[in-house]
Amino acid sequence: MHDPVVSVQEGVLDANETIAAANRGDFDRAGVTVINLMSSPGAGKTTLLEHVLPHIGEARVGVLEGDVRTALDADRIAALHVPVALVNTDPGFGGECHLDANMVRSALPRLRLEDIDLLVIENVGNLVCPAEFRVGEDRRAMVFSVTEGEEKPLKYPLMFRTCDLVIVNKIDLLPHLDFDLDLFLDNLDNVSPGVQHMLVSAQTGAGIDSFGDWLKDVTFGRDRKFQR
Amino acid sequence: MHDPVVSVQEGVLDANETIAAANRGDFDRAGVTVINLMSSPGAGKTTLLEHVLPHIGEARVGVLEGDVRTALDADRIAALHVPVALVNTDPGFGGECHLDANMVRSALPRLRLEDIDLLVIENVGNLVCPAEFRVGEDRRAMVFSVTEGEEKPLKYPLMFRTCDLVIVNKIDLLPHLDFDLDLFLDNLDNVSPGVQHMLVSAQTGAGIDSFGDWLKDVTFGRDRKFQR
Repeated sequence: MHDPVVSVQEGVLDANETIAAANRGDFDRAGVTVINLMSSPGAGKTTLLEHVLPHIGEARVGVLEGDVRTALDADRIAALHVPVALVNTDPGFGGECHLDANMVRSALPRLRLEDIDLLVIENVGNLVCPAEFRVGEDRRAMVFSVTEGEEKPLKYPLMFRTCDLVIVNKIDLLPHLDFDLDLFLDNLDNVSPGVQHMLVSAQTGAGIDSFGDWLKDVTFGRDRKFQR
Repeated sequence: MHDPVVSVQEGVLDANETIAAANRGDFDRAGVTVINLMSSPGAGKTTLLEHVLPHIGEARVGVLEGDVRTALDADRIAALHVPVALVNTDPGFGGECHLDANMVRSALPRLRLEDIDLLVIENVGNLVCPAEFRVGEDRRAMVFSVTEGEEKPLKYPLMFRTCDLVIVNKIDLLPHLDFDLDLFLDNLDNVSPGVQHMLVSAQTGAGIDSFGDWLKDVTFGRDRKFQR
C-alpha cells in the first residue's frame, strides 16, 4: 500500500526557492549574471561598488539596492549613472532584515534586464538572515570589515560558508587595529575551506582591481561554476 | 448586538510580550535591573563589557550572552569571574538573528537572579530584529562603531529610536576615518530627539567611566525612568 496523500508542507516552506527559480529563469533568458552582495551594516558594500563599477566598462551593470529604509545608497549608485532599483524592506514596525526572492522579484520590472550583463544585488546589512534566502543569484560575495574582529567566521558560519568570495575590506585601518589577519584567515578557512578572498580598501583603492576582475570574469563566464 | 467571539489573534502575535512580562516579574521579584545591549556585529559589545564590568564593584553583575554560535564571548565574560548564561540561537540552518523573550526565559534558570543586581543581556549582533523584541528589560543600550558610517540612524531608525543610551565606540579610530561625528549626531538626534549618548573607546579606555556610572545609576535607581 502506498499513501495517496501528497504533503504540500515542504512546498510551502520552499516558496522562496520556487520564486528564486523563477527569478533565475528570467536572468537566464536575459543573459544576466547576478551577484548577491552581503555584509554587516557599515562594512562598505556601497562604497566598494562606487569604486569598482566605473572600472568594469565592458560589462553593463545594474544594481538592486536593499535597505530597511532610505534611498541613500540607491542615490549614490544612481549618481554613477548605473540603473538602480530600490527595495525598502520596512513595511511598518522594524522592517525585514534581509532580501528574499519575492522582494527581488517585485523590483525586477523596474530594471531592463535585457540591457544589462551584470546585476549586483546589495542586500540589507546583516550577517545572519540574508545568507538563508537564495534570490536566484549566480554567485554570492560578502564584504567583511577588519574592524569587526577575527572570530566572525566562527560566530556567523553560514554567511561565510555560503559565499563564493570574501572581500576583506578597510585594510587601510590595519595599522590602527588590534586585528590578527592570519588568525582571521585561519578562522575563515576553518569554516569555508579554500574559499576565495581578496584584501581591499575602498578608501585607498587597494585591491579594487582584483574585485573588478572577478566581477568581469564571473559576468563573462571566464570563471563559470554556477551554483544554481 | 455584540459579537461574542473573542479574537485570540492579537494574543498570539503578542506571545513575546506575554513572556517578556513574565521575565519582568521574575526580575522585579529578585530586584534585578536588566539592560538589553545591542549593536551590529563587531561594534565592540563584549570588549566594552570586559572593560566596564570590573569597575562597577558595588553592583553584582550577571551576563546573558546571545550568539548564533560559539561560546567565545561567554568565555571572555566568564574569565572576569562574572556569572554568565549562554544562548546559542542556531538550532540548525542559519540561526535566529536576535534574542526573544522566550530564549531569555529559557536561560534564566542558569543564573541565580537573587545573587545579582544587574543583568546585562548581550544580544546577537544585528541592527534590525533585536530592536523588535522586548525581553523584559528595564533599559536598552546600543553600541555604535564609528567605522559603520554617519547615516546608520537613518537607515536603521528603530534600533536607534528604541534605545535609552547610544554608546559611540571606537573613537580612537576617528583620525583614520572619513567620518563626520557632528553629522552622525545630527542624524541620531533627528531619529531619536534628545537621546543620551556617550563617546567611548574600549581600546584606549576613553569614556568607559561614563558607561560604568550609567550602569550603576540605572542599577540603583538613581536615574530610574523604566520603560516597561
